[in-house]
Amino acid sequence: MTEAIGYLAAACTTFALLPQAVHVWRKRSVGDVSLSMYVILVSGVVAWVVYGALIHSLPLILANSVSFLFAGSVLAGKLVFMKRGAKA
Amino acid sequence: MTEAIGYLAAACTTFALLPQAVHVWRKRSVGDVSLSMYVILVSGVVAWVVYGALIHSLPLILANSVSFLFAGSVLAGKLVFMKRGAKA
Repeated sequence: MTEAIGYLAAACTTFALLPQAVHVWRKRSVGDVSLSMYVILVSGVVAWVVYGALIHSLPLILANSVSFLFAGSVLAGKLVFMKRGAKA
Repeated sequence: MTEAIGYLAAACTTFALLPQAVHVWRKRSVGDVSLSMYVILVSGVVAWVVYGALIHSLPLILANSVSFLFAGSVLAGKLVFMKRGAKA
């Protein structure tokens, strides 16, 4: 039971970014998406992957590699589409 | 060194949400902020706090309580301001 809650937590915090990435690339609208947030977040998940590699933790490496894909997609979308909008 | 990278990673992924929360409440504009993302994320950090309590991990409880404040602020802002915009 405890372990199930842990896996649920990991799944939620990893996949939460997916709908935001979908929104950004489908709507091509990023005015309200914080650039600072995704610069810091991508840096953080990269640091988690490095830390996971250093302590040989496969779960840390895997979960944060997935987060990197999603957070990186949002950041890339922000950088691509922010030039087109006025609110960026 | 390894431990420093771990703390850096934790700090980044925890505090990344702060600039997004500031943006939402300062600009009162949330059209591009994904509702699904923050519903899933808030559920996830609550699950991490519960898991942290069950395994008696104070770092998990503390880090995710901070994340809950920031992610909760973004979600609350989304719910408050989405009714005013057209893009929500």
